Amino acid sequence: MAFEQERLTEAELARLKDLARSARGDIITMTRVAGSGHPGGSLSSLEIYLVVFSCADFSGKVRDRVVVSHGHTSPGVYASLARLGHLPVEEVTAFFRKAGSPYEGHVVRGIPFIDWSTGNLGQGLSAACGLALAGRVKKQGFHVYALMSDGEQAKGQVAEARRFAVKYGLSNVTVVIDWNGIQISGATDMVMPVNIIEDYLADGWDVIEIDGHDPAEIYRALRSARASQKPTCLAAHTIIGKGIPFMEGKAEYHGRALNEREMGEAVAALGIEDRTGYFREKRKGRWEWQPSPREDRPAIEAGDPFTYADEDKVDNRTAFGKALKDLGEKNIPGGRPICVLDCDLASSVKSTDFARAFPDHFFQGGVQEHNAATVAGALSSLGVVSFFADFGAFGMDETYNQQRLNDINRTNLKLVLTHLGLDVGPDGKTHQCIDYVGLARGLYHFKSIVPADPNQVDRAVRFVAAARGNFLIGTGRSQWPVIRKEGGELFYADGYRFVYGLMDVIREGTDGAIIAYGGMVERALRIRGALSTRGLTLMVVNMACVTEVDGKVMERVRQLPFVFTYEDHNPETGIGLPIAAWLLDHGFRGRMGRFGVREYGASGDTDEILKVERLDVESMVGAIREMMSS
Amino acid sequence: MAFEQERLTEAELARLKDLARSARGDIITMTRVAGSGHPGGSLSSLEIYLVVFSCADFSGKVRDRVVVSHGHTSPGVYASLARLGHLPVEEVTAFFRKAGSPYEGHVVRGIPFIDWSTGNLGQGLSAACGLALAGRVKKQGFHVYALMSDGEQAKGQVAEARRFAVKYGLSNVTVVIDWNGIQISGATDMVMPVNIIEDYLADGWDVIEIDGHDPAEIYRALRSARASQKPTCLAAHTIIGKGIPFMEGKAEYHGRALNEREMGEAVAALGIEDRTGYFREKRKGRWEWQPSPREDRPAIEAGDPFTYADEDKVDNRTAFGKALKDLGEKNIPGGRPICVLDCDLASSVKSTDFARAFPDHFFQGGVQEHNAATVAGALSSLGVVSFFADFGAFGMDETYNQQRLNDINRTNLKLVLTHLGLDVGPDGKTHQCIDYVGLARGLYHFKSIVPADPNQVDRAVRFVAAARGNFLIGTGRSQWPVIRKEGGELFYADGYRFVYGLMDVIREGTDGAIIAYGGMVERALRIRGALSTRGLTLMVVNMACVTEVDGKVMERVRQLPFVFTYEDHNPETGIGLPIAAWLLDHGFRGRMGRFGVREYGASGDTDEILKVERLDVESMVGAIREMMSS
Repeated sequence: MAFEQERLTEAELARLKDLARSARGDIITMTRVAGSGHPGGSLSSLEIYLVVFSCADFSGKVRDRVVVSHGHTSPGVYASLARLGHLPVEEVTAFFRKAGSPYEGHVVRGIPFIDWSTGNLGQGLSAACGLALAGRVKKQGFHVYALMSDGEQAKGQVAEARRFAVKYGLSNVTVVIDWNGIQISGATDMVMPVNIIEDYLADGWDVIEIDGHDPAEIYRALRSARASQKPTCLAAHTIIGKGIPFMEGKAEYHGRALNEREMGEAVAALGIEDRTGYFREKRKGRWEWQPSPREDRPAIEAGDPFTYADEDKVDNRTAFGKALKDLGEKNIPGGRPICVLDCDLASSVKSTDFARAFPDHFFQGGVQEHNAATVAGALSSLGVVSFFADFGAFGMDETYNQQRLNDINRTNLKLVLTHLGLDVGPDGKTHQCIDYVGLARGLYHFKSIVPADPNQVDRAVRFVAAARGNFLIGTGRSQWPVIRKEGGELFYADGYRFVYGLMDVIREGTDGAIIAYGGMVERALRIRGALSTRGLTLMVVNMACVTEVDGKVMERVRQLPFVFTYEDHNPETGIGLPIAAWLLDHGFRGRMGRFGVREYGASGDTDEILKVERLDVESMVGAIREMMSS
Repeated sequence: MAFEQERLTEAELARLKDLARSARGDIITMTRVAGSGHPGGSLSSLEIYLVVFSCADFSGKVRDRVVVSHGHTSPGVYASLARLGHLPVEEVTAFFRKAGSPYEGHVVRGIPFIDWSTGNLGQGLSAACGLALAGRVKKQGFHVYALMSDGEQAKGQVAEARRFAVKYGLSNVTVVIDWNGIQISGATDMVMPVNIIEDYLADGWDVIEIDGHDPAEIYRALRSARASQKPTCLAAHTIIGKGIPFMEGKAEYHGRALNEREMGEAVAALGIEDRTGYFREKRKGRWEWQPSPREDRPAIEAGDPFTYADEDKVDNRTAFGKALKDLGEKNIPGGRPICVLDCDLASSVKSTDFARAFPDHFFQGGVQEHNAATVAGALSSLGVVSFFADFGAFGMDETYNQQRLNDINRTNLKLVLTHLGLDVGPDGKTHQCIDYVGLARGLYHFKSIVPADPNQVDRAVRFVAAARGNFLIGTGRSQWPVIRKEGGELFYADGYRFVYGLMDVIREGTDGAIIAYGGMVERALRIRGALSTRGLTLMVVNMACVTEVDGKVMERVRQLPFVFTYEDHNPETGIGLPIAAWLLDHGFRGRMGRFGVREYGASGDTDEILKVERLDVESMVGAIREMMSS
């Protein structure tokens, strides 16, 4: 068990002192060999890294977790881990910041004991909270360390995470702040004064001030924090550039490597040899160490689908809520954890039934979307299937960069966005999310699904719960009619199985095709109906997987003379352009029309707004007829 | 002068009481007529609105400013303004939340005394700080009121704004918090406990606790805040649903209209008539009142362009910095204000020369990007040309929703993004901004320019400074060769004038075209060079205006057999798809290749990473040859 002994022994302290000296040499050498990097903060964080990496509990299967929030201090991380025997010393020094190597400029998951890829300051404490929640949900008593810089304490997301940790009593989280008082532009007190201690205390944390270069003191404080009933912050006073006299206290060494003269002076101060030449030569070769791949794929029971007809009066977000609760019932009692994060919109995004049934698996994050998005991502990274359900404007627009970092971390997040498109109605332009398809397209490992009716929602939700990786499920606000086959049978019920990436031909047609998703599919069917009375038959295609162009269906679409995309989304970032590109690449010779939202929408009923944007059924019938007859 | 008298007179208090009763009737009527809206918080904020709107200084040309951060309390805003004579009472009641009317679900700029469109909680205080800075820069002594909810105090951006206000001594900002203790999901203390008073005090604010339904007390506290040397927060204890007994203290009335039975009970309690029927009828008609258009176009002197050759060793971000300083010199002494916002990256984004020359026009926002983005937008909305310069990953990815709200507000922001694409190099994937073209494309009123060399940067920067509206200027990190004509003359110097929306044909060609922007233009020239030795000549096109397809140049491109887009950006969100769509629409019969970044990039030198992504010159020559010969 970690931190059992009351204090570090003299022998242990002597060893740490010795390792620190070697690691300082590694830090200045690797940054000089790479020609860039951040030696200043690496030197000030070094003793913190050495004590945490050598004293926390990394022995068993259920090991402690670490988030290095100021990921640019990667040289300090690599050097400490290497000197403690967890990474090859020569490789980290030679291949730091070499394209393709694991030793990136900002730390990434896969490095031993590094549980979150960072680089965007201020997100690390939220990630630590997510990992800590995973420990609680899985009943694993591990501790989580969030190692941070002082400059990033200014970020608002840190305050959000502090409150979240207090609300959920995450006493298994310890923050250590490398308080060196210097950031890129100079003294933190000049750049942006932050009352660090007052802020942590005001939000209900314990604070312990320590000398961040004294391993004995660091150990004692970490031990005390581990025993505390509150989340605890160690405010560790440090010196930027510590250990190399001319670097100490200087902002200029925050982010630049030493030059030759400085290097000579530095190795002399440390009493070591300058091995820059050796490592420069070695850098031309290839590294051997590779991170081992991670697989936290929880085996989720998807359950049997629910089927709805119009008379059930179930809108898509409610269908999500019902599937969610069913998934909880099928899995949580059996120890297959599913969790839900909310930002004060549970009743609108329909996660309340789940919350009532599984209060220990439901986390109310308040109006703190940045924190909640990161918590959900980090939670999902430890084998807990995590749903983060929010209005599109908040769950994606507001938190885009948090979702991007989740994506970089290859999390297992299920992001449910409701009230998408113009269907948020009278809440108006700030709440209309008419850009999410484009945003999702920029996230390489997100798969996105905007189902057309509650039956498809139910099947898609069960699919994503059981599948590995990041998924986006989108719904509107209103109830839309269920989609039926020509003969009247439910399209997305018996015999239908959700397969990611497929387009569905809802109706055949010979005069053109209209491609839509979500609430526009049913409108497309009405447009088809209106046009058919004038002798025109349109194929209607549901492109629920909004970032995937299904070549098989498109091959049929391509042979028609007209193709229309129809979305309550900005047509410049929605499905219109990728469909156009596919058609261009495949020799389409007909004409294409891309219909979408051309200006931030008005505040009013959905149908009224659609009319203002000329996307209502009547306007569309007119526009399509005009195109087809011109 | 506002708040001269020590207290409100009995007559004034009686009048306010009377107005409040009528306004309460308006609130419940307009939400019922619209069938949606937020009566609860409107009723709790009402006395605050009435006192601020009647007592602040709205008389002169230099009037006080108001940001209603919890924009969903719009019924309370409309009702108070109407009862005070600034809006037509009957129209606000009849046309609330009707598509196209000015009475939107969340308040928008254009409503009298409403200086910022809101809807995303937590951004309002930052906007107030931006407006307050404008007052300082323009030497106008107005006061700014940020009226907020208690639920939004949880948002991290509020903490960022608090610190910014203290750092810059914005004692002309007063916050009033409608502390009704209830948010959508229930009691704020259950949803997400926030130690509001402790948090404001910890960050260095004055706090005054008051009864938010007592106009006399509100007045006294506002008066005291106005005299304070510190930014002051009025923590106003209120009751959600105030004035209508059965609504008081109930979370359910946060966001829903009354039904018929409830309405009857409510009008009885207020002692007024139920005029729902009358207004429902009136709603079928049309409103007359329209907001007057705003025009805050500052007349900026663009100065004479600077011209660079390779031997000047000026990279694009440095060219931005030099133009910026020159713009300052040409304008600031003459009273045409230009300001710059930074987030601890001035030395990298090259705004330090400007900062040294104009310290009163340079604002260091620290590692608080959300706040800085909103401050910059709001500052620009009052006739101050505002540059917000940051790495792309922070100035756009992290703050996308803040830029979206700036865009909705039709600000006059000049967003300068540096270190774009893979050119950020070894900082790695979190810092690589390879999605900004797609993000910018989603912002309807942003115009985006990524110049190819320092000469084009200089001219574009001067252009955007003088032009009205939101612009994005993008640069990389490295120095790229200047672009020259075939004969060796500088392409972007003598005789060149930047015109927004044009593509430039840098080299003619007959076998195909390669379209690029930023640092890829010079690489495209090298690709052309390598291919020309094999008898292939490519047209090279610079698409600096990355979100505009220039039909005139494309008409020539269209006639070539091959078109390639080439970008260090995700090709699914960059220029590739819009070019494809244009070509499809215009009957292109050749073949297209879209080259870009297909996975989050590695950490290494730019050229190394480009090689990993197969976007280096050699890989490209191979890929293009293969395509052209297959």
